[in-house]
Amino acid sequence: MSKGLPKRSEDYAGWYNELVKKADLAENSAVRGCMVIKPYGFAIWENMQSVLDKMFKETGHSNAYFPLFIPKSYLSKEASHVEGFAKECAVVTHYRLKNDPSGNGIIVDPDAKLEEELIVRPTSETLIWSSYKNWIQSYRDLPILINQWANVVRWEMRTRLFLRTAEFLWQEGHTAHSTQQEAIEETERMLQVYANFAENYMALPVIKGVKSAHERFAGAIETYCIEALMQDGKALQAGTSHFLGQNFAKAFDVQFTNKTGALDYVWGTSWGVSTRLIGGLIMAHSDDEGLVLPPRLAPIQVVIIPIHKNEEQLERVRKKAIELQDALRKKGIRVKIDDDDQQTPGWKFAEYELKGVPIRLVLGPRDLDNHTLEVARRDTKEKSIEKIEGIDLKIEKLLETIQQTIYQKALAFRQSHTTEVNTYDEFKKILDSKGGFIAAHWDGTSETEEKIKEETKATIRCIPLEGYRDKGKCIITGKPSERRVLFARAY
Amino acid sequence: MSKGLPKRSEDYAGWYNELVKKADLAENSAVRGCMVIKPYGFAIWENMQSVLDKMFKETGHSNAYFPLFIPKSYLSKEASHVEGFAKECAVVTHYRLKNDPSGNGIIVDPDAKLEEELIVRPTSETLIWSSYKNWIQSYRDLPILINQWANVVRWEMRTRLFLRTAEFLWQEGHTAHSTQQEAIEETERMLQVYANFAENYMALPVIKGVKSAHERFAGAIETYCIEALMQDGKALQAGTSHFLGQNFAKAFDVQFTNKTGALDYVWGTSWGVSTRLIGGLIMAHSDDEGLVLPPRLAPIQVVIIPIHKNEEQLERVRKKAIELQDALRKKGIRVKIDDDDQQTPGWKFAEYELKGVPIRLVLGPRDLDNHTLEVARRDTKEKSIEKIEGIDLKIEKLLETIQQTIYQKALAFRQSHTTEVNTYDEFKKILDSKGGFIAAHWDGTSETEEKIKEETKATIRCIPLEGYRDKGKCIITGKPSERRVLFARAY
Repeated sequence: MSKGLPKRSEDYAGWYNELVKKADLAENSAVRGCMVIKPYGFAIWENMQSVLDKMFKETGHSNAYFPLFIPKSYLSKEASHVEGFAKECAVVTHYRLKNDPSGNGIIVDPDAKLEEELIVRPTSETLIWSSYKNWIQSYRDLPILINQWANVVRWEMRTRLFLRTAEFLWQEGHTAHSTQQEAIEETERMLQVYANFAENYMALPVIKGVKSAHERFAGAIETYCIEALMQDGKALQAGTSHFLGQNFAKAFDVQFTNKTGALDYVWGTSWGVSTRLIGGLIMAHSDDEGLVLPPRLAPIQVVIIPIHKNEEQLERVRKKAIELQDALRKKGIRVKIDDDDQQTPGWKFAEYELKGVPIRLVLGPRDLDNHTLEVARRDTKEKSIEKIEGIDLKIEKLLETIQQTIYQKALAFRQSHTTEVNTYDEFKKILDSKGGFIAAHWDGTSETEEKIKEETKATIRCIPLEGYRDKGKCIITGKPSERRVLFARAY
Repeated sequence: MSKGLPKRSEDYAGWYNELVKKADLAENSAVRGCMVIKPYGFAIWENMQSVLDKMFKETGHSNAYFPLFIPKSYLSKEASHVEGFAKECAVVTHYRLKNDPSGNGIIVDPDAKLEEELIVRPTSETLIWSSYKNWIQSYRDLPILINQWANVVRWEMRTRLFLRTAEFLWQEGHTAHSTQQEAIEETERMLQVYANFAENYMALPVIKGVKSAHERFAGAIETYCIEALMQDGKALQAGTSHFLGQNFAKAFDVQFTNKTGALDYVWGTSWGVSTRLIGGLIMAHSDDEGLVLPPRLAPIQVVIIPIHKNEEQLERVRKKAIELQDALRKKGIRVKIDDDDQQTPGWKFAEYELKGVPIRLVLGPRDLDNHTLEVARRDTKEKSIEKIEGIDLKIEKLLETIQQTIYQKALAFRQSHTTEVNTYDEFKKILDSKGGFIAAHWDGTSETEEKIKEETKATIRCIPLEGYRDKGKCIITGKPSERRVLFARAY
């Protein structure tokens, strides 16, 4: 049954946009670049939040909340932060409206101009470090391990639902430490948390690495990242963890008395993931029929569809469906029964395929007589007839199998789309034919990096933490290189 | 041990402000009127969110997310909404910064002026109804039952932590229905949810009622509310639920085909509670030594403080404390052991009193020999020596007892501070002597209401849904009145 989705092979971008809308995940709003996250899309975000929040708390972090607005002058305080950070920001200049004297609705009151403009936070380092200054006097006040769930705004000119929007939701961790080593350990710990989340919940294999100087977060000493591969061969940065050194502490004069009684600047980290992960989740796993959601994040894990020809049959089937639902819920499985008699079973099959529900159970009067039901997997489209007895255990195992299968499929795709090349010609050929990650030697300079970006639109996604340690020569300049780095075109 | 808090009887406002800061709940930020909610304060909000979110989902609602910004023209569309709503709003006029050509940091780029100004949402009815227009065609698309957790901004000139801040966190429910009756039922259902939450979790007795026309939400047909009483005799509006009629549907042209095939406007509701509830929680229960938190919302329900004279004793006591902690955690109780040896037990007792931890357990070497421990209640300050055996069950029950005791105390306070008066003289005398709710007859006009407000600063808090049905004469005009209404000075 057609959902009217473009095929991925013909129009990947169109497929993505249509899928996001048809599966009721999100839509564009009346405000340029800002999206409405609809209940089904938001339920995925809630599942992500709940898992990540638990991981953050297990690693000792607490949540807090800092203001939406940043005084303009704060942004100038850390030189490389303001220099490198996009200046596309929403600027609040006035604080009052009034009735238009000419009677045409409301106007901005010109008398209510702010003395200093406020910037809607694009990220909160400056504001948070200005608070930390008052919280930290001694090493006893450290570490501070805080996370916040918040909305941020970056005035992007070309937006795409989830992947790049003017406003998006995210979490931002901001920690303060008494030693460099502790701050680096924290940066790496949170990278590992993100990698675990991506691989074990999103079923998304990721490469852990560090960014080149050119791609580093403005104000950081080192930016760690996880990079994932989408089905069109483009990469997606799925999370970043920044070692800030003492940069923000110096900018905001955050000093502490260390154990020896001497004054020192505080060491910092920051790390974040956003609603862009939903975009990555969709693009990594879904197919031409719709979403394919990994069970651990799917809002509905199992849908039960009763089949019936009349009201009497429906009643019998519904009774069994409710029993089944109760048994599955006892196992903590998220189940929905769809017994809406305004829609045909065929319509429902297509609908839940579109929505990526991992398992569909179909139950008709004949099944009741035979004590069986039909089990259909979303990921492989396999169907089988199973005994109802003990089905709860089987479903529980099957959800786990699906989770693993989706991960393995994405991993195999990435492996077959990671290519080592030794010449620039080869580099360009691979990039234009199959895309994916390209492991190549690079001389370590920003000039070479920018030349490649300019000519091919490929960027260095990361210098991987593991592997690729063979020596060679830069594909552009021929200069010696100690290791390969990963290039790709990226979202 | 003194916490340096002002006494409530001498300086209630000062006591509140100091308590919020000293208990590490929140502080003012560098941005005028905006607060930083610190981890301990945010943990209370997280507990509130988690309970409310569950209640919303159990009543059929889903979460979603709508943009932060509202086009200015949208605010003009519902006439009474824009007329009655405070025009103190944060206005975004520009979308880019640039380096100051004179080299002094950054300036707003004058070339990046928005064609239409954007308002940072003070509430989201207008934006959400503009989306609902696209979501609703037929009665089959209804009801829509959506909630969002969000930050909102109202440019308040006089702010106070939690109670009135320029930015605050809240939830806003926005529902759409095919009939008036269903929308009214929804409005009342959510009022009941709020009342249940206030009474059973916040231990805060509330009066359910409707607002007078004068105090009604701008754009609503009827505003239901819950009103609570603080210890200084002032009232606090703790939540509102609005029946919007077809006002926003008409303003945004949201029509649907009903079951008979005719076009009709959609019926709406909206309802919200905010971080102001934390202010209410503090002011209703806390005392001169610090916070008194109801166990169901307390971030830490039980603190265990080991007593020891040397390292060897500490090790023995710590081992038992951990056993105890495990046993309590198995019962779902939030426990913390404070074995920091940089602080004295006396300091810790004062600290956890300040932070309102409901139960303190003290465990020393002699207790281990006697198989006992000391149990201290925060609310009544009662202490007792208890056998360690079976203590987990006793603590579980004691938390419940404390929850009830706090509620009963607040209820008794409200009852003793609710006074029926029959003359304006009596009204003013009671208002200035003991404050609280004053049940008086009123002629139903806004003129009388405003006169009373102007002369006494008391407002009609609500027309209660239950009780006060005796007939009488307005205390100002002597005109006949069908029932009493509740007045108070309010936050």
